[in-house]
Amino acid sequence: MAHALDGIKVVDVSTMAAVPMAARHLADFGADVIHVENPATGDPWRWWLTAGGRELSPEVNYRWWENQNRNKRSITLDLSQERGREILYKLAEKADVFLTNFRPSELERYSLQYSHLSNLNPKLIYGNLTGYGKTGTDKDLPGFDSTAFWCRSGLLYMLQQAGMPPPSPGNRLLACGDNVTALALAFGVMMALFVRDRTGIGQEIDLALFHTAVYTLLAVPLALGMGEEATLTDRKDTPALTNSYQTKDGRWLQLSLAPPDRYWSGLCRAIEREDLEHDSRFESFEARAENQATLIGIMEEVFLGETLSDWNTRLARAGMIFAPIESPLEVTADHQARANDFFTSYEHPDYGNIEVIANPVKLSQTPAVIRMPAPEFNQHTEEVLLELEYSWEDIAQLKDNGVIA
Amino acid sequence: MAHALDGIKVVDVSTMAAVPMAARHLADFGADVIHVENPATGDPWRWWLTAGGRELSPEVNYRWWENQNRNKRSITLDLSQERGREILYKLAEKADVFLTNFRPSELERYSLQYSHLSNLNPKLIYGNLTGYGKTGTDKDLPGFDSTAFWCRSGLLYMLQQAGMPPPSPGNRLLACGDNVTALALAFGVMMALFVRDRTGIGQEIDLALFHTAVYTLLAVPLALGMGEEATLTDRKDTPALTNSYQTKDGRWLQLSLAPPDRYWSGLCRAIEREDLEHDSRFESFEARAENQATLIGIMEEVFLGETLSDWNTRLARAGMIFAPIESPLEVTADHQARANDFFTSYEHPDYGNIEVIANPVKLSQTPAVIRMPAPEFNQHTEEVLLELEYSWEDIAQLKDNGVIA
Repeated sequence: MAHALDGIKVVDVSTMAAVPMAARHLADFGADVIHVENPATGDPWRWWLTAGGRELSPEVNYRWWENQNRNKRSITLDLSQERGREILYKLAEKADVFLTNFRPSELERYSLQYSHLSNLNPKLIYGNLTGYGKTGTDKDLPGFDSTAFWCRSGLLYMLQQAGMPPPSPGNRLLACGDNVTALALAFGVMMALFVRDRTGIGQEIDLALFHTAVYTLLAVPLALGMGEEATLTDRKDTPALTNSYQTKDGRWLQLSLAPPDRYWSGLCRAIEREDLEHDSRFESFEARAENQATLIGIMEEVFLGETLSDWNTRLARAGMIFAPIESPLEVTADHQARANDFFTSYEHPDYGNIEVIANPVKLSQTPAVIRMPAPEFNQHTEEVLLELEYSWEDIAQLKDNGVIA
Repeated sequence: MAHALDGIKVVDVSTMAAVPMAARHLADFGADVIHVENPATGDPWRWWLTAGGRELSPEVNYRWWENQNRNKRSITLDLSQERGREILYKLAEKADVFLTNFRPSELERYSLQYSHLSNLNPKLIYGNLTGYGKTGTDKDLPGFDSTAFWCRSGLLYMLQQAGMPPPSPGNRLLACGDNVTALALAFGVMMALFVRDRTGIGQEIDLALFHTAVYTLLAVPLALGMGEEATLTDRKDTPALTNSYQTKDGRWLQLSLAPPDRYWSGLCRAIEREDLEHDSRFESFEARAENQATLIGIMEEVFLGETLSDWNTRLARAGMIFAPIESPLEVTADHQARANDFFTSYEHPDYGNIEVIANPVKLSQTPAVIRMPAPEFNQHTEEVLLELEYSWEDIAQLKDNGVIA
């Protein structure tokens, strides 16, 4: 067996980031994934990077499209036309997995609810991702990861510092929550495929960005238990041993020395401040908590004395738990990321040899592979229609009527 | 079939947050998961919430333990003793899945590498999570999600604002990156189980917190494509239509109006500032970019004019993409979270009826269920040893020798 998901057929009726990424995971492991796009507009993810006027060369712009859609085929279908829906139903009849991010109202409009498709194909695995869930007054609210995942869940609140505006992930962490939720959806699909192989039963998988984000947060079970508000904090409220510090070269590093008593003595040696170890102001957790501002001040000064690179060496040698705060560009050159093959490359017909992030899930016997680049718009429409036994004459007619592009 | 993973046996040799959560996902869907703990110390996660002196009642402290370990059995084994390792090997021989977060050096010390266990059980699915990968100079660096996931990956950098210290996730978002990576590991396990059912092949799954975090970031493929540094920004550099705003009652909301041209006119109506729509300073993307500070200033004033609750109603009615920034406590009462069953409850023998976060992956035919609360320390050691056909005499001896607690 070459690939984990050889022979598995996936229909991916989705746009943007989360469901396309879940489908890409299946494609990375060998499934035949057909991404269905609107013939008039295409998946907006094709041009999202330049949304609203930003000018970028095609060589840069295609990177996000490639990231969510490699290893797939793409067809166009106008689902507002009956003939467009007919073709999609035929695909669903032959598919193992059907994935969509349409909102409840859209699923109804196009008769793409599970109740309909499971009639056509009772063994179908049907995955539906919403922003806010399938019921409740906000079920049709458009959900982006910047809103449904980051803001509504409590996640951004936990990053906000007292007296300051929240950090703004709207621009900066685009699709990060989508890519997280994609893993949950891919997990659900694989469980459902496993059950189907053993029992013959198909089923529906239901996920929400909002719920997935809430799941990641330990502050929520705590709030459920205590019924108390988590207070906003700032640097001065953060214990010295789990705080971040600036270095001589203006960089930042994060300490994560927990439980702190285990690391206090080693830290004093690593920063060459053995005098602090038995200083009565700092020698116990309670004392450090009481004199937190003083200790943070001392450590700020200490860390400003050396460069980030020097601290990396010293703290690693001392067995401290810490990390440099790296930029995305630094990550692309990070020696540890390189040593562990976080990146892989392949030939793109238009852009030559390109480097991308390798699938983070590494299987030794049936590894993720890149079999082909992300599809051009409409690239496989004819090929897929011929597989469904449409004739060239049908195809011409569908094109004339705008059912396909 | 009652559960998706009925009959699947999982051995979970891990501590803290990420691998225990991956195993909990399998347990939520019906697998028999045995969590293996050190008889002297237990899994530190049992007391992590009070690490370093914080005082909390047991009713609150157990919430994190419960969150990562419900539905499991727990045994103790001293792996530094040969007889302890022997018992673990017997468990691995009969298991379908073996999960561990031991570092490469620890796996070697206890002979728990895949090469060893797959000799005992060639069909075993073996999942190993590291902080920084299995090779490279940093492979044995202790990796917490606050460091390996948030800082080293570029994630925290993208949240940092120009001229300000980074937000500090060390305390505030504890285990969030672990819970994300748990989904990736659970996905890998299910693929491997699926492959094994079809082909009889066992295999190894390898994941790193660092790689999983990098995977979530679209800034990384962009950096790979452009070779340019993402610049730090602040509020004033963030486009007005994807910025956050404070409301009359001191709360914050986030707009995520992209692509902005599609939403500009609706926004002007929603904020009752139709005068802005065709104002030449703002009517196009380019104009708004040029007059960004002015527009942000106007909108700051507008949003300060009403409460968050008023804005929620108005913006939802206008079809805007936005969200309130909610605290974890608010999330526990959020009407949409409640309507979609984000929470579930069960009887705990010590603490009565408790409420927890439901599994975010909802399967219609084989749903996640809570069959039992998280185990007490050492609760199932005797039961599991008896299943392995140890006698009561053996058990007494193992206890005497400290192999078990």
